[in-house]
Amino acid sequence: MKKLSKFFITAIVGVLFFGIAYAQFTRPESAIAYRQSVMTIMGYHTAQMGAVVTGKKPYEKKAFSRNAAIVEMLATLPWQAFMSPGSDKGKTELKPSAFKEKDKFLAKAKVLETETRKLVKAAAGDDFNAVKTQFGNVGKSCKSCHDAYRAR
Amino acid sequence: MKKLSKFFITAIVGVLFFGIAYAQFTRPESAIAYRQSVMTIMGYHTAQMGAVVTGKKPYEKKAFSRNAAIVEMLATLPWQAFMSPGSDKGKTELKPSAFKEKDKFLAKAKVLETETRKLVKAAAGDDFNAVKTQFGNVGKSCKSCHDAYRAR
Repeated sequence: MKKLSKFFITAIVGVLFFGIAYAQFTRPESAIAYRQSVMTIMGYHTAQMGAVVTGKKPYEKKAFSRNAAIVEMLATLPWQAFMSPGSDKGKTELKPSAFKEKDKFLAKAKVLETETRKLVKAAAGDDFNAVKTQFGNVGKSCKSCHDAYRAR
Repeated sequence: MKKLSKFFITAIVGVLFFGIAYAQFTRPESAIAYRQSVMTIMGYHTAQMGAVVTGKKPYEKKAFSRNAAIVEMLATLPWQAFMSPGSDKGKTELKPSAFKEKDKFLAKAKVLETETRKLVKAAAGDDFNAVKTQFGNVGKSCKSCHDAYRAR
């Protein structure tokens, strides 16, 4: 295990940075970095699907399904980071109202999780129109939360 | 579909930003943002597992397994972004040697994918010592690539 000490030190530094020893983010900037990272990757893979749905790229079932699966997993990740105390300040577009309306915010989060799960199911099928419709529902879910809680 | 036009515009802007109409990143800074995002999230979930392995946090099989699954998926994502032309310049710690040694770099990437897949399997079992050993192997894989291709 000696060779790995550097790795474990890195892991412990990670614990301190993210503060996850307390199962949450102790520093608002760590929470912001985490959730913005999730959104960056989610944006990329959503854009890939968007290019297909809008006819800019050909539909390839396997690639589309993979993008849908990635977005489905990512959609489950950032909510604790979003609700991290003090993280409505600093380099973030999160509106403070998200904290005041925590239940509403988390309900919207849950809708995204549900809609992305449905997109994975649609993408596994052979009905591209159903895929397009469900991609639209995912988009509605994104938009609903951004409109309410994202400062522009 | 009219209501969704803003969403689709966002999707198309995403396509332009990431340049994925050509199935790759057209702007080096998009590739850098993407892979750094993956590393940020991977770092968080690796740190969570590290806290367990080093005894800072209690071992909870379900939570550990979920972290392992997240890292497994993330480990498959960033390699195309890392190999994106011109992305060894700017706000990145990637050494230009990664491009010159593309095959070696991608071989190390493949090892991480394999080791994280094995960690998911170990985490599904009941042998915590096996989990610790396999977490160590994941760490070796991280370190091997960072030592070779990450500027400090």
